[in-house]
Amino acid sequence: MRIAVIGVGLIGGSIAVSARERLSAVVSGFDLDARSLELALERGLIDRACAGVSEAVADAGVVFVAVPVGSLMESVAAVLEAAPAGSVVTDTGSTKRALVASVDDPRFVGGHPLAGTEHAGTSFARADLFDGAAWYLTPSARTAPDALERLREILVRLGARPSPVSAERHDRLMASVSHLPHVLANALVCEAASMPSADGDPPFAAGPSFRDITRVAGAPSAIWTDIYVQNADLLDAAIGRSIESLQEFRAALAAGDAVRLTALNEAAAAARAQLFGGSR
Amino acid sequence: MRIAVIGVGLIGGSIAVSARERLSAVVSGFDLDARSLELALERGLIDRACAGVSEAVADAGVVFVAVPVGSLMESVAAVLEAAPAGSVVTDTGSTKRALVASVDDPRFVGGHPLAGTEHAGTSFARADLFDGAAWYLTPSARTAPDALERLREILVRLGARPSPVSAERHDRLMASVSHLPHVLANALVCEAASMPSADGDPPFAAGPSFRDITRVAGAPSAIWTDIYVQNADLLDAAIGRSIESLQEFRAALAAGDAVRLTALNEAAAAARAQLFGGSR
Repeated sequence: MRIAVIGVGLIGGSIAVSARERLSAVVSGFDLDARSLELALERGLIDRACAGVSEAVADAGVVFVAVPVGSLMESVAAVLEAAPAGSVVTDTGSTKRALVASVDDPRFVGGHPLAGTEHAGTSFARADLFDGAAWYLTPSARTAPDALERLREILVRLGARPSPVSAERHDRLMASVSHLPHVLANALVCEAASMPSADGDPPFAAGPSFRDITRVAGAPSAIWTDIYVQNADLLDAAIGRSIESLQEFRAALAAGDAVRLTALNEAAAAARAQLFGGSR
Repeated sequence: MRIAVIGVGLIGGSIAVSARERLSAVVSGFDLDARSLELALERGLIDRACAGVSEAVADAGVVFVAVPVGSLMESVAAVLEAAPAGSVVTDTGSTKRALVASVDDPRFVGGHPLAGTEHAGTSFARADLFDGAAWYLTPSARTAPDALERLREILVRLGARPSPVSAERHDRLMASVSHLPHVLANALVCEAASMPSADGDPPFAAGPSFRDITRVAGAPSAIWTDIYVQNADLLDAAIGRSIESLQEFRAALAAGDAVRLTALNEAAAAARAQLFGGSR
């Protein structure tokens, strides 16, 4: 099997090395950043470092486009231009509506693995990154059923759990479980850092939960600004709903209404149990 | 050394077992919940299970009161009534202003270890819970300097990093790094769970960051409602500042202002670096 990966950062690099190890695939890679491409070759993530998209995808059966959301449309278009008939082309972008609407090709299936970490870059790529991870696929009416099926099989062999969903539902879900959390984490670190400090005050300290909650704060702007922009409408709505929920909490707080505060907290406990089945 | 622990849940139980193992202390325990007390004895967290506060503290050199914030004032008062002259009495509550203001005794030093986890209860107590953890101490003008010093030494031997701070500053800090994060985590799970779902939709999935961020959502109401109520003014202010920051983000989002969105994200990255020194 021949696989091409365009963009060999954390996600693309992990796809590449996982495909080599688990599918015995021959993997061609390309990255606009020459250093990342070189590192991917040195680390054995890819078999071959190519000089451009056309060379990388020329004989590929499956192409993964794992570049930042901001350059995704352009990259996917270039890949589809050069990839063989009968190949499957997919991407790993965090927003899907705009991209999927821009492509009209039976070989294309939008995709998004939920497997990033706060550590971006080729040096963090690893073969087991997708073990057990949800991997959304957003086929359009134009997608060949066979292309979807072949991609699913490959993703399962990479350790992931592929899950077809509409681009709209994907983006709504991501607004809630990824983009909004990033925005709130940003607000949290800014709030904590804004506390005035005087001589003699102890150094900043917080418990493990604050560290967990703010781990994604200030995630790379080169990736995240585009995600925010592309999902602006749904993200704005999610922020709006959160503010309403915060205002509801404040009203109970201002009234010293312990019963209501408890009810709100229990509703959150129930929501969490609904999402995660009770486990933490 | 004789130590008494009132409330043998996660925090009290961990203090007890750590004191036994690291200070070779003889530890008396009491808990209103008979099952927790029994479990603490069975697990070897304490040497002796007592029938009440008076019995537990009668011959103690140091007393830790580790009960929920809502019953802290009452418990500390009862302990001070019964504890020997020359003993040191401290607590582990998450809010400090009200308690510290209510006590007028040289033996008392308010305290708060930043070491909880999302798993409450005696069964999760462990001797290393405080290793490297910040442990705020909020002595008042009435606190005997010697009591503060003895407590500090003990906490260091339990593995913690004791740090004196005013009760006001403590509560302001906790509003930002603990209470607000809990409120935001609650808002996040409610938002995610509110997404309508139809037959054929894939099961809920989110990446590891969502799980990290929402781990504390719906934390035990028996503990948290009282914390929220006792820190209502400072928590309300922190929520208010967060909402302002979210509205600022929304304005940039609505304008599609990528430059401004990037600046806000970079400000968060700088805030995070200021708090944590760049590490994640």
